[in-house]
Amino acid sequence: MGKQQGLTEKKEADFSEWYNQLVLKAELADYAPVRGFMVIRPNAYAIWEKIQTYFNSRISKMGVKNAYFPLLIPKSFFEKEAKHAQGFEPELAWIESTDKDVEEKVAIRPTSETIIYESYAKWIRSWRDLPYRLNQWCNILRWEVKQTKLFLRTREFLWQEGHCVYETEKGAEGEALKILDEYKGLCENKLAIPVISGEKTSLERFAGAKKTFTIEALMPDGKALQMGTSHNLGQGFAKGFGIEFLDKDGKKQVPWQNSWGFSTRLIGAVAMVHGDNKGLVLPPEIAENKLVVVPILFEKTKATILKKAKELSKKLSKFNPIFDDRDSYSAGWKFNEWELKGIPIRVEVGPKDIAKKQVVLVRRDTGEKAVVKESKLSAEVEKALKDIQSSMFKKAEQFLKANSTEAKTWPEFKKSIKEKKLVLSWFCDRPECEEAIKDETTATSRCIPFGQKKGNNKCIKCGQKAETKAWFGKSY
Amino acid sequence: MGKQQGLTEKKEADFSEWYNQLVLKAELADYAPVRGFMVIRPNAYAIWEKIQTYFNSRISKMGVKNAYFPLLIPKSFFEKEAKHAQGFEPELAWIESTDKDVEEKVAIRPTSETIIYESYAKWIRSWRDLPYRLNQWCNILRWEVKQTKLFLRTREFLWQEGHCVYETEKGAEGEALKILDEYKGLCENKLAIPVISGEKTSLERFAGAKKTFTIEALMPDGKALQMGTSHNLGQGFAKGFGIEFLDKDGKKQVPWQNSWGFSTRLIGAVAMVHGDNKGLVLPPEIAENKLVVVPILFEKTKATILKKAKELSKKLSKFNPIFDDRDSYSAGWKFNEWELKGIPIRVEVGPKDIAKKQVVLVRRDTGEKAVVKESKLSAEVEKALKDIQSSMFKKAEQFLKANSTEAKTWPEFKKSIKEKKLVLSWFCDRPECEEAIKDETTATSRCIPFGQKKGNNKCIKCGQKAETKAWFGKSY
Repeated sequence: MGKQQGLTEKKEADFSEWYNQLVLKAELADYAPVRGFMVIRPNAYAIWEKIQTYFNSRISKMGVKNAYFPLLIPKSFFEKEAKHAQGFEPELAWIESTDKDVEEKVAIRPTSETIIYESYAKWIRSWRDLPYRLNQWCNILRWEVKQTKLFLRTREFLWQEGHCVYETEKGAEGEALKILDEYKGLCENKLAIPVISGEKTSLERFAGAKKTFTIEALMPDGKALQMGTSHNLGQGFAKGFGIEFLDKDGKKQVPWQNSWGFSTRLIGAVAMVHGDNKGLVLPPEIAENKLVVVPILFEKTKATILKKAKELSKKLSKFNPIFDDRDSYSAGWKFNEWELKGIPIRVEVGPKDIAKKQVVLVRRDTGEKAVVKESKLSAEVEKALKDIQSSMFKKAEQFLKANSTEAKTWPEFKKSIKEKKLVLSWFCDRPECEEAIKDETTATSRCIPFGQKKGNNKCIKCGQKAETKAWFGKSY
Repeated sequence: MGKQQGLTEKKEADFSEWYNQLVLKAELADYAPVRGFMVIRPNAYAIWEKIQTYFNSRISKMGVKNAYFPLLIPKSFFEKEAKHAQGFEPELAWIESTDKDVEEKVAIRPTSETIIYESYAKWIRSWRDLPYRLNQWCNILRWEVKQTKLFLRTREFLWQEGHCVYETEKGAEGEALKILDEYKGLCENKLAIPVISGEKTSLERFAGAKKTFTIEALMPDGKALQMGTSHNLGQGFAKGFGIEFLDKDGKKQVPWQNSWGFSTRLIGAVAMVHGDNKGLVLPPEIAENKLVVVPILFEKTKATILKKAKELSKKLSKFNPIFDDRDSYSAGWKFNEWELKGIPIRVEVGPKDIAKKQVVLVRRDTGEKAVVKESKLSAEVEKALKDIQSSMFKKAEQFLKANSTEAKTWPEFKKSIKEKKLVLSWFCDRPECEEAIKDETTATSRCIPFGQKKGNNKCIKCGQKAETKAWFGKSY
């Protein structure tokens, strides 16, 4: 790898430029020819597949099954839930109707509540059908993206969206919260990104939902990122689409619903939170290849080294190692390349090591080198991977703690927001007040954290009655 | 399951109506509100996931990685390969440009050669980058579908599309053929559907390809179905999109390409080929749940039976069994439901059986019942699954053989086509002649089978020079 292939911007100097370089040079994504669109390259798609496999196994245990619903949604569907229609109208990409035999205008899905619930109205008949739980993995298009940021803000993105129907509100809300916990588990245990969780304010609620729950992470530039949301949809959509069921007494009832989703944005969060000035740093849990074996080749010992390195790779096969025996690149070039791409561990096999039946093990996260006996290599790799995973999480957790604070006065609030912190304060939860806070500070509410005792306090901004505290921060 | 829930049409009476009922009632798919679109329900999506998992593991061994490219393609891209543009123009769904800040018209992908190769032109630099092999799983939209047939002919469908770049034509064509073999393996070993393979005629070649290879299956109504294709794309796209690489001597060269795909249509083929008048019959290899355990409940022995049935289900967990302990349905209702849904094996646990430490094992494909000792259950299930898989394939193979024939004269040809057979004949491979055959018989060419010695014969239809034989048949 020539110097021009590595990152030329420092994370601490220009975060935004560093992130862009990282995404492009680690070959996670590329810009597409149509503005606002991106290509997800194999290095990032492999992360997405890891996330999919893990999450599928989790929701399958909850009784959720995968399905696939149409890309195109008729205009009238958006109008069946008034707030939903209003929320998504500006974001829709409509299909040209010239020469097409469509009776009605259709748009590409910005989310699939409407098209899915039309089917649910046909399929759900009885209490025996409930809970009815489906999820789909698909592409989504929201046109009104002003400024593209790879993974974080693109017109098209990939996501999962779960849509479930219950006899009671307790069922719907209970599982919406259970899913939020799953999201938290995914972020913390797999992506090594700590999150805060809570309910969205009135202003930030999903269009058409009764309550929206969220998990939020803090990026290194002090901006908050929504990592996943789940919604208690109440009965609004069910009423709009005519979903009904016969209860045990044979009476018609309107069910309760929830929906929930996370997107490929999570990949951007991983790059931002863990990346450094050498490139990507992948949490082992979501790394397709846990390690790379690099033979250190000299003319004389080449054959012996290659043989040994290959043999070691085979022994480490459960970690799905990359065996980099390419002739046309130097060892140093290879070190740089795999550091750029974030492979958690590098195993160097050189002539001196071979003689001593040992190898050099290098951690991507800290750069620490350790000499390891061949006989103990597999166990040491296992241990190192666990260490890397947990220390990456701890580091991110310390950052989150160091950059979260509580503000008791409006000047304190403004100061902390200016210092790029997440700020907790008493808040009235009035949309007008939240707009005012945004106008003055550019900060938006992130969530009203769970587990608060309702108080009788004064809003940090307007001084009106505030029952709960809320987190605020800048976002993308 | 009430009688109205089962199939009311016989496969041998009205195949098309039987198929529709099967797809809807086995809950494989449903019609969507927009004409030409479908919903893929969990029972079918689970089959798709099985296919994905299997195929991903195969191509991963070949060095193919998964990625994701944008849904929308600029107009000018379609024009860079002239024949490709011509082939797909009528099928495009364009995005309305009103109020959108698009400089250029964009359409939803009908296939992704163009948008992918634009990126390849940026990414591929050197012989070191080759072969360059990517695949994507995505949705595709082709508007010009006149009559919807669930899974087989819908405007939107899911598929995989592989796109690879090589230094030589030998590399590109060799792997196109290797992939075709993989497709054949998928169909025959997993879906239990025998196929014939060969090259497409000039008329049926993919728009922009130098050669198209195909596998074709015969459906029970005598119609042929294309199950997957791979293409030697030559250098046309590479030239159109400016893909170049520096060879080992530092000279600029134009690479060779292939592309290949199969779609959710395969699920329709499985339903057609194996289904019977009771419903779907799933080949065990692609069945999410290999068996269902149904306890036969009577008031007195209920608790004992449920306990035993649950215990057996646990012991059979590697077959991912459904344990149907629902209280609100009779055993007979359950038998019908799981037969409709095609679960390969039913295990009945009744009071008489329990006393004798045995259960009843029922094969879905033949309806055969066998009394099996509890102690041997797992081994017997294993054996039965293998038997079912191979006998389903053999049955389909016999049908294909019995309905394939060679014709030496034009009247013979017409007679066999009328008898709904696949017909092999000498063919000149002139598009005009193929059009004439189609006009007179409604049959189209399926493929020019591999492994033929080139002859010097006369075309079955026009009498002009024919070097090879080709398969013809009716199709959907």
